[in-house]
Amino acid sequence: MRMVDLIEKKRNGGSHTKEEIDFIINGYTDDSIPDYQISAWAMAVFFQDMTHEERAFLTEAMVNSGDVIDLSAIDGVKVDKHSTGGVGDTTTLVLAPLVASIGVPVAKMSGRGLGHTGGTIDKLEAIPGFSVEISNDQFIDLVNKNKAAVIGQTQNLTPADKKLYGLRDVTATVNSIPLIASSIMSKKIASGADGIVLDVKTGAGAFMKELSDSKELAEAMVKIGNNLGRKTSAVISDMSQPLGFMVGNALEVKEAIDTLKGQGPDDLTDLCLTLGSHMAVLAKKADTLDGAREMLQEAIASGKALEQFKVFIESQNGDPSVVDNPDKLPQAEFKVDVLSEEDGYVAGIVADQIGTAAMLLGAGRATKTSEIDLAVGIELRKKIGDPVKKGEPLVTVYSNSEDIEASKQKVLSSYKISSTELESPPLVYDVIT
Amino acid sequence: MRMVDLIEKKRNGGSHTKEEIDFIINGYTDDSIPDYQISAWAMAVFFQDMTHEERAFLTEAMVNSGDVIDLSAIDGVKVDKHSTGGVGDTTTLVLAPLVASIGVPVAKMSGRGLGHTGGTIDKLEAIPGFSVEISNDQFIDLVNKNKAAVIGQTQNLTPADKKLYGLRDVTATVNSIPLIASSIMSKKIASGADGIVLDVKTGAGAFMKELSDSKELAEAMVKIGNNLGRKTSAVISDMSQPLGFMVGNALEVKEAIDTLKGQGPDDLTDLCLTLGSHMAVLAKKADTLDGAREMLQEAIASGKALEQFKVFIESQNGDPSVVDNPDKLPQAEFKVDVLSEEDGYVAGIVADQIGTAAMLLGAGRATKTSEIDLAVGIELRKKIGDPVKKGEPLVTVYSNSEDIEASKQKVLSSYKISSTELESPPLVYDVIT
Repeated sequence: MRMVDLIEKKRNGGSHTKEEIDFIINGYTDDSIPDYQISAWAMAVFFQDMTHEERAFLTEAMVNSGDVIDLSAIDGVKVDKHSTGGVGDTTTLVLAPLVASIGVPVAKMSGRGLGHTGGTIDKLEAIPGFSVEISNDQFIDLVNKNKAAVIGQTQNLTPADKKLYGLRDVTATVNSIPLIASSIMSKKIASGADGIVLDVKTGAGAFMKELSDSKELAEAMVKIGNNLGRKTSAVISDMSQPLGFMVGNALEVKEAIDTLKGQGPDDLTDLCLTLGSHMAVLAKKADTLDGAREMLQEAIASGKALEQFKVFIESQNGDPSVVDNPDKLPQAEFKVDVLSEEDGYVAGIVADQIGTAAMLLGAGRATKTSEIDLAVGIELRKKIGDPVKKGEPLVTVYSNSEDIEASKQKVLSSYKISSTELESPPLVYDVIT
Repeated sequence: MRMVDLIEKKRNGGSHTKEEIDFIINGYTDDSIPDYQISAWAMAVFFQDMTHEERAFLTEAMVNSGDVIDLSAIDGVKVDKHSTGGVGDTTTLVLAPLVASIGVPVAKMSGRGLGHTGGTIDKLEAIPGFSVEISNDQFIDLVNKNKAAVIGQTQNLTPADKKLYGLRDVTATVNSIPLIASSIMSKKIASGADGIVLDVKTGAGAFMKELSDSKELAEAMVKIGNNLGRKTSAVISDMSQPLGFMVGNALEVKEAIDTLKGQGPDDLTDLCLTLGSHMAVLAKKADTLDGAREMLQEAIASGKALEQFKVFIESQNGDPSVVDNPDKLPQAEFKVDVLSEEDGYVAGIVADQIGTAAMLLGAGRATKTSEIDLAVGIELRKKIGDPVKKGEPLVTVYSNSEDIEASKQKVLSSYKISSTELESPPLVYDVIT
């Protein structure tokens, strides 16, 4: 088999066999196929696409390029949730204790964030003492005992995907449905999930800005999961504005606590209940989505979910008293309102610009080695549909520096103000199973 | 400027500016842009094409990547001829003395062949004593004095094209009209031509097998030439069978002599008169193609063209007596007929398979360092439209080895025999100016 022939086959619209995909991915992983052939092939894939079968072969080949986590020592059906990215997306912090409290095992392997705000681990580390530096055995024991644990990613998962993603990033081949879908799914499958619930974002702040593209990506990932024997569902949710009100690490922990108390923002609460219902059904803790939703609402109302969060925090050396006293979370020195410069109604909030505004305050990493400031961030005071008067606060900035000018400009440019009243966008556009 | 943005622009169907093309080609030449970005870009060009303007920018950038030959010390309009490749294409050997004899300066920079049969230099070296090892000054003096000279290519012409072609060859991006056209034209322009006559082959034995593709390539090259101030014409000629009867170095020299005597094969003679007419018009030695053709026919009939060939040979240390005594050319030891295995009519002769048959005898180089045997080759005894009976010779093989089995099998598979009579294909399909 020669790589040049496989590039030509894809260029001419052909479909690869499993053997061909394995040849490509194994050859790229062991450096026997050079970057310049893979980038030409990736561009051919961009134009000619892949069948669902090819996408499954590609995902499987990338899974097999590195370590595969074995979660079989954990009782029950392990269901993982993945979001295609968004800003102020606090769902993982809410969902982990919420679904654990109804018996769904949550064995979360997570990373640190780059850009916008921190990753799940960064957010959890805003809780004093919290540590993800636990051994694999401790991790498994904790999930079996408490139903939830989070560990940092240390294994060599999907090295082929890492290498391919790095190449796609510099060759304008990122934006290809089969390559995006196989990249995401390979990481989830290598992490040992039996079932996967996908939160595919759509709208101005999402990677996929058009609903049709988001649907195509969701369908691609669900097909891959099901073809590889992992029950997979996808929820297509709105990112025409950030989810909830808070963007920033400690701020999002506080918002998660509020939500687990039943006092969170409507959109965040609703999305957590929707995603959680899918997780519960895949984990066979409920027969129907409606039944699952009731169980989750009851877990919040009864305080069971909040109690689960305390247990989870304590089991990883964190201080559970933050749940009752959120003031123990890192606090920013300055709170400054950014005021509207016009009258009207909020028509849109470009989420990634709000993310950038938070990063400029120190909430996210500009480069891999940047230190992040867990206390800072942005609180949205107005969301889509809200009327606003000139001089009213659009957001409150939480900062440890007096100079917030760069952030303020980003905030102002992210808010779209219309002279006519607009309805809020739907939270969930579609569900693909 | 970032290469990744330029790849994305081309991927999305955009057109590059001159500055962008210069950035790409200069960056690739000086290694500041890596292979993997260029190959992704070339694949994007494959799918999205280039405007005529972009193709001229690309050609010019490749010309400027290396040495550019200055032929201004030669009197008159220097016109070069280029063929897109074919088998048994003896036109250059005929055309050089033929057009020189009516006053068109022929300053030919040429190379050795790879595959099939030798290049023009290999063929000329079949003439005892003939040498292309002359200095640049001698070369220019000879053209001014005798109107024709051939020199080996020693300068560093179009290094960007060499590098890009090598990359395209292993990334399935050879077959792209803008990339093929700019590659050919950059070499011709860097060689110093004022005018260019292109012989674009079409048919089973050509690089472009479909007439529509050949036309597209011809139009692309003519546009590039004219956009860069070089008068350019293209003739689209048949390659559904080899041109003339002879394939092999000394054999083609003999056929060229016959043609200059007015006793050559009809198709070779006709194509030389057609291409020569275009050269004479571009060089302003004739006002019309018909007038030029008459001058060339007269040069053959009067013996002026043949005399010019003798002068040309002698001026480069060759033995001009081969013209009157072709037996002084290298002779093969064995002459073996390959016989038809069926009755019928010749419907096609796949030229590149005949070329391979000749290479297997030693007429061409399998690798860059192979020695070639100037004496051996193939004489076609039947051409398209000829009736043939089982047991009649299709070709005569000239060999220095008794074992010609591999060649024989190639010959037999190259001949398409039909049970019904077929007309000969036209020699010239179209002319693009």
